[in-house]
Amino acid sequence: MCPANVEEGHQRGFIIPIGGAEDKEANPSILRKFTEISGGREAKIVVIPTASRLDDTGERYEKIFEEIGIGEVSHIDIKSREDCNNPEFASRCEEATGIFITGGNQLRLATILGGTAVAQVIRTANARGVHIAGTSAGASIMSEHMIAGGDSNESPKEGGAILAPGLGLTNAMIIDQHFSERNRLGRLLSAVAYNPFLMGMGIDEDTAAFIGPDDICEVVGSGTVTVVDGGDLTYSSAYGTDNRNALGLLGLKLDILHEGCLYDFNIREAFPPIEDRQNICKI
Amino acid sequence: MCPANVEEGHQRGFIIPIGGAEDKEANPSILRKFTEISGGREAKIVVIPTASRLDDTGERYEKIFEEIGIGEVSHIDIKSREDCNNPEFASRCEEATGIFITGGNQLRLATILGGTAVAQVIRTANARGVHIAGTSAGASIMSEHMIAGGDSNESPKEGGAILAPGLGLTNAMIIDQHFSERNRLGRLLSAVAYNPFLMGMGIDEDTAAFIGPDDICEVVGSGTVTVVDGGDLTYSSAYGTDNRNALGLLGLKLDILHEGCLYDFNIREAFPPIEDRQNICKI
Repeated sequence: MCPANVEEGHQRGFIIPIGGAEDKEANPSILRKFTEISGGREAKIVVIPTASRLDDTGERYEKIFEEIGIGEVSHIDIKSREDCNNPEFASRCEEATGIFITGGNQLRLATILGGTAVAQVIRTANARGVHIAGTSAGASIMSEHMIAGGDSNESPKEGGAILAPGLGLTNAMIIDQHFSERNRLGRLLSAVAYNPFLMGMGIDEDTAAFIGPDDICEVVGSGTVTVVDGGDLTYSSAYGTDNRNALGLLGLKLDILHEGCLYDFNIREAFPPIEDRQNICKI
Repeated sequence: MCPANVEEGHQRGFIIPIGGAEDKEANPSILRKFTEISGGREAKIVVIPTASRLDDTGERYEKIFEEIGIGEVSHIDIKSREDCNNPEFASRCEEATGIFITGGNQLRLATILGGTAVAQVIRTANARGVHIAGTSAGASIMSEHMIAGGDSNESPKEGGAILAPGLGLTNAMIIDQHFSERNRLGRLLSAVAYNPFLMGMGIDEDTAAFIGPDDICEVVGSGTVTVVDGGDLTYSSAYGTDNRNALGLLGLKLDILHEGCLYDFNIREAFPPIEDRQNICKI
């Protein structure tokens, strides 16, 4: 599904995929930045804990956001597709300035939220300017094409990434999480190999990509965001193989972005942090 | 150390780093190709099991090569620096048409072999046309700059790769092994970041790079060889950080080579298998 249309006079909100295991106490820089852009003391955050099977995930994030200090935070306890059509839940999402989707299992998220009133409200809210953050499974669900599964610790293979439709907040890239920690380059490359129009974005733990309405993203957090671009592939063996054979992919571009680095998805180019930008040179 | 000089009338032998865990029974395509280029039924292979702490590693490889069917195979039982100066061992290396260095620990190899007569004989033998294969630790030791250690499952970091001098059979690239299986992209990128003149080559298990005297390599085996090229880096944060902070590396080139793909280290370019080469197009 394409991102929802932005109506005249509005600007799309940020989408903020987080690689999981974000720092929640010592230096919660990602969650703090999310609350700041959502209005700080005026922010109204709604937490969607549906991906998680733990009963206290919603309450836990309420406490974390309260400690960071924001206007208002609540969670909506969606456990079934029926819950998603509860008009109260939809209206709470509509009133939010920021929506936070927790980790867990992205297929649980997709199977419960997909095609419901709440999913549509999240999409239109983002098109109206509401910022949507999601960690781990909550990061995966954001894109039009979602990585639902696939093996870690593998070279890229046909069948190396299992795709499913996501929420469709962006169609510029496909997102993977716990990226360096769980060795997911192979499955991200498998996904990119299916159709190299998709850019691949692998996000480490405690790391986030703040993707603006202009499709420029800035990295926040202690790890890296890995961007793989297959747009200039000179050779791919992705068709005509089977899932036992490793893929060949020649001519990929790779950028490893740490905190402060930018990536412009319009022109497929990475930029260093602003303080280093005056000294760019070939090294 | 630079590769030993090639004297007039000679051609350097292949060097064949293998990513570890090569198939030894069902389809020993890597070991078979190594024995073929070493002379097949005329081959004289010497196995150096020094990296391994297991007593039977040398004998085990003798049996494997015998089953493949070659002229002559023996191992030299080097366990100390003193052994390395044993003239019999040096002369056995001199008479070999192929030398095979087993897996184990590459620092054990470097500390025992480094600077000894046997090390020098291996270097000059290769310059004279003898083919040198090495698996796992035996692959790492081949390059001038060797990855001696560093964490897996990490983003690139200052200190993310621990370098030590290797045998210096090549200085075109730095080699890592068990690459996809042990998630070593971060440490390979850490090594490349130190000085991007070095190309990074990450070799999967049961996969080998047959690097010819022309510095063109061909991939054999069931996994992939990952080549990272930092030559056109536009930004690196490798200096001025500390080992707690993730590195930013923008503008890397990445090629994932499966069996039959070639990489030309002279021009830093990858090529598909020959049967696919007539249909190269932008896809």
